[in-house]
Amino acid sequence: MSVTAPRGFRAAAVGAGIKKSGLDLVVLAADAACPAAAVFTTNLAQAAPVLVSREHLATGRARAVVVNAGCANAGTGPRGLADTRATAEHAARALGCAPQEIVVASTGVIGVALPMDKVRAGIDAAVPALGREHGLAAASAIMTTDTRPKHVVVEFRCGGAQASIGAMAKGAGMIAPNMATMLAFFTTDAAVEPVLLRRALVEAVGESLNRITVDGDTSTNDTAVVLASGAAGNVPVSGPGADYDALRDALTEAARELAEMIVRDGEGASRFAEIRVEGARTAADADRIARVVADSPLVKTALHGGDPNWGRILAALGRAGVPLDIARTDIFLGDVWVSSAGAAREYDEALAHQALLQPTVRLRIRLGEGTATGWIWTCDLSHGYVDINAHYRS
Amino acid sequence: MSVTAPRGFRAAAVGAGIKKSGLDLVVLAADAACPAAAVFTTNLAQAAPVLVSREHLATGRARAVVVNAGCANAGTGPRGLADTRATAEHAARALGCAPQEIVVASTGVIGVALPMDKVRAGIDAAVPALGREHGLAAASAIMTTDTRPKHVVVEFRCGGAQASIGAMAKGAGMIAPNMATMLAFFTTDAAVEPVLLRRALVEAVGESLNRITVDGDTSTNDTAVVLASGAAGNVPVSGPGADYDALRDALTEAARELAEMIVRDGEGASRFAEIRVEGARTAADADRIARVVADSPLVKTALHGGDPNWGRILAALGRAGVPLDIARTDIFLGDVWVSSAGAAREYDEALAHQALLQPTVRLRIRLGEGTATGWIWTCDLSHGYVDINAHYRS
Repeated sequence: MSVTAPRGFRAAAVGAGIKKSGLDLVVLAADAACPAAAVFTTNLAQAAPVLVSREHLATGRARAVVVNAGCANAGTGPRGLADTRATAEHAARALGCAPQEIVVASTGVIGVALPMDKVRAGIDAAVPALGREHGLAAASAIMTTDTRPKHVVVEFRCGGAQASIGAMAKGAGMIAPNMATMLAFFTTDAAVEPVLLRRALVEAVGESLNRITVDGDTSTNDTAVVLASGAAGNVPVSGPGADYDALRDALTEAARELAEMIVRDGEGASRFAEIRVEGARTAADADRIARVVADSPLVKTALHGGDPNWGRILAALGRAGVPLDIARTDIFLGDVWVSSAGAAREYDEALAHQALLQPTVRLRIRLGEGTATGWIWTCDLSHGYVDINAHYRS
Repeated sequence: MSVTAPRGFRAAAVGAGIKKSGLDLVVLAADAACPAAAVFTTNLAQAAPVLVSREHLATGRARAVVVNAGCANAGTGPRGLADTRATAEHAARALGCAPQEIVVASTGVIGVALPMDKVRAGIDAAVPALGREHGLAAASAIMTTDTRPKHVVVEFRCGGAQASIGAMAKGAGMIAPNMATMLAFFTTDAAVEPVLLRRALVEAVGESLNRITVDGDTSTNDTAVVLASGAAGNVPVSGPGADYDALRDALTEAARELAEMIVRDGEGASRFAEIRVEGARTAADADRIARVVADSPLVKTALHGGDPNWGRILAALGRAGVPLDIARTDIFLGDVWVSSAGAAREYDEALAHQALLQPTVRLRIRLGEGTATGWIWTCDLSHGYVDINAHYRS
C-alpha cells in the first residue's frame, strides 16, 4: 500500500503529459500540516526542487509533496527556481495551505524546463482525486527507467500505540547517493518531534540509501523525505529512548528495503552484490574501498559474466586511495577464500563461480589495518545499461 | 618500425604459449647496457615485474626488456617475485649481462602464476632471433585485448646529430594511468644522462599517458620504460637546454601518439573524446574534474549514443569533489555553447549532435574559479566493453 498505508495520508497520481506516456505526477498529502524532514543530494549542481524544498523544510513541517517524473528541473537556472515556486504555490492553493508547506521533487532529463501548464493541470486533476487507495499508483508514477514500482510498509510499536511506515522510491540510474538518494518518500502515522524525525531519517539513510551505487553518478535531484502525521495516537516521540529507537529502526528497515529494490532494478542490472570491507583503520576507509570496488567497471562486468575474476577486486582495492598493506589483505567470494596476503590461494574455481550466481553475491575484503568495517550494495554492468543510456533523451 | 627504429636496438617476438595463441613474448635489447628509466603504476597492488623492475632500474641503466602478454604476474605473492627474478636471470644469461640490467614487464590475467617453462623456452628462442626487423612483431606480441598494434617513430635533432625515438604500447582495458600507463616502451639512439632521461620520461608521460582513461581502473602492471642507446653520436644531453627540450618534446610526441592510440582502441571504444577544463583554481582541480567527467558511465554512454546530454556533464562536474560555483560554469560540445551559468542555453540540437560525431569529440568545461586548465582523453562505453570483460578469463 506504499505511502498511504499509515493513517493520515492520501495520494493521487495522474498522467500530466510530462513523460511521453503514463502516470507522471503525484500529490502526496497529509490530512494536515505535520512534522517533516528531508535529506538532499551533495552534488554541487542542485536541481531547483532541491533548493526550494530545503528552504521550505527549514520549518520542520509540511503538508504535501508534489513529485513529477520526466523532467528533473535541474540545470534550469532562475527559471527553474521560479517554476518550482510556482508549482508549490499552485499546489498550496488547491490544498488550502501555505506554499512553504509544499515539498517539490522532480526526476528525469536534466537541462529541460518544466512544462508548467501541464504541471498546473496535473495538480488540478490530482488534488480532488486524493485517496488512500492510490499508494501503488503513486509509486508507479514516479518511475523513469525503473522497470517496477518500489514500495514497502513496516509496522512497529511506538509510544504505546501500533504505528507504521509507508515508503516508495524511484532509482535505476545516476545512483550513487551521498547524504541522500534518488527520490524516496516515507510517511508514518507516528507522532514525533521534527528534530527527532530528522535525526531518524539521517540515521536510516546512512545505513541504507547512502550505501548503494548503480553507476557511481550522484544525481542532481536526490531527495529523501519523511512526513509524520501523528495519526497513530502514540505518545509523541520527543527524546532519545526505546520509542525513538523503534521509529528509527522501522525507518531504517523501510529504507533498506527500498535501497535493495533500487539496486536490483538498477539500469540493466541482472545481479545484486553486497561488498563488505573489514579490518580497516576507519569506517570512512572501509566505505571508500567498498565504493571503489563497487564502481569498478571491471568488477561490475566480471559480476555480470559470473566470472570469479578476483584480481580485479585486488586492483580496485589498490587504487582506492586508502593507505594499506596489500600483503595483509584477503578476498572472499561468498565463502570461498580466493586471495590471501594479496596473492592467489588454491581454491575451487567451480565454487567461486557458484558464489557469483547467488541471488545476493557476497564479496568480502579483509584488511589488516584495524577493526572498522563498511559495506555497500551494487549491481552488475550490462548491455542493458548501455542501451538505456546511449539514447536516454530521445 | 616501432622500437627498433633507433640505432642500437634489436627485438624478437615469439609465441611461447602463454596466451592461447599467437606471439606473446618479446625481448627488446640494446646492443650494450645503456641509460634507462621507467615510471610505474601507483596502484598499491603492484605486480611482481613492477617491483623487480623498479629495483633493477635504480642504477639508471639497462640492457634489455623482457615482456610477456597473457599473464600479469600480479597477485602472485612471493612466488611471483621469484618468477620475475628467474625471468631476469634467464634472459641475462642468454644475453651475457647482469640480471639487474634486465627490465621485466607482464600483462594479462591477474592472480595466475607465470608458466616458467614456457617463459624460459621463449627467451631461449627469442635471443638468437634478435634483429632490427622485428619491431612490428614486438608491438603485436604485447597485445591482450588490443585490436591493433600501437607503435610510432619520431625524428628529432639533438646535440648536433639526427636522432629518433621508437615506441610501442599496449592498452585496451584497466586504463586510468596514474604516474605511468599500461605497458609502453620507448627507445632512442640519443645519448643522454640517466637522470635527464628519467626527467624527460616523467614530463612526457605527464602530458600524455597520464591523461587517458578508458574505464577508470588503474592497472597493477602499468609500466613505461625508455632506453637510450647513444648510437646517434650526438653530444650527450647532460643538462637543461635546447637539446634536453628536443629530447623531451620528441618523447612527449611519441607518448601522446601512443596515448591516443590506446584510447581509440579502448575496449569496445567507438568514439574518442578530449575533455578540457578551464578556469579552475588549480591544475589538480581541473584534472580531477576532467577525470570524473571522463569516467562517468552516463557521460560515456551518451557519447556512445551521440546524445548531446550535457546535463550529465553538469551532474558529474557537481560531484567531482572540487569546490566550485555551479552558477559560474559553462559547457561546450565542440563549438556549441550548450550551458551557461549552470543552466541550459538556447542552442541548435542538430549542431550539438554533430559535435558528438566528430573523429575527436571536444567537450569543454569553463569554470569561473581561476585560470588553471587540465585535459584528458577518453572513449565511450559500449556493448563491446561489457562483452570483453564479462568473461575475460575464460
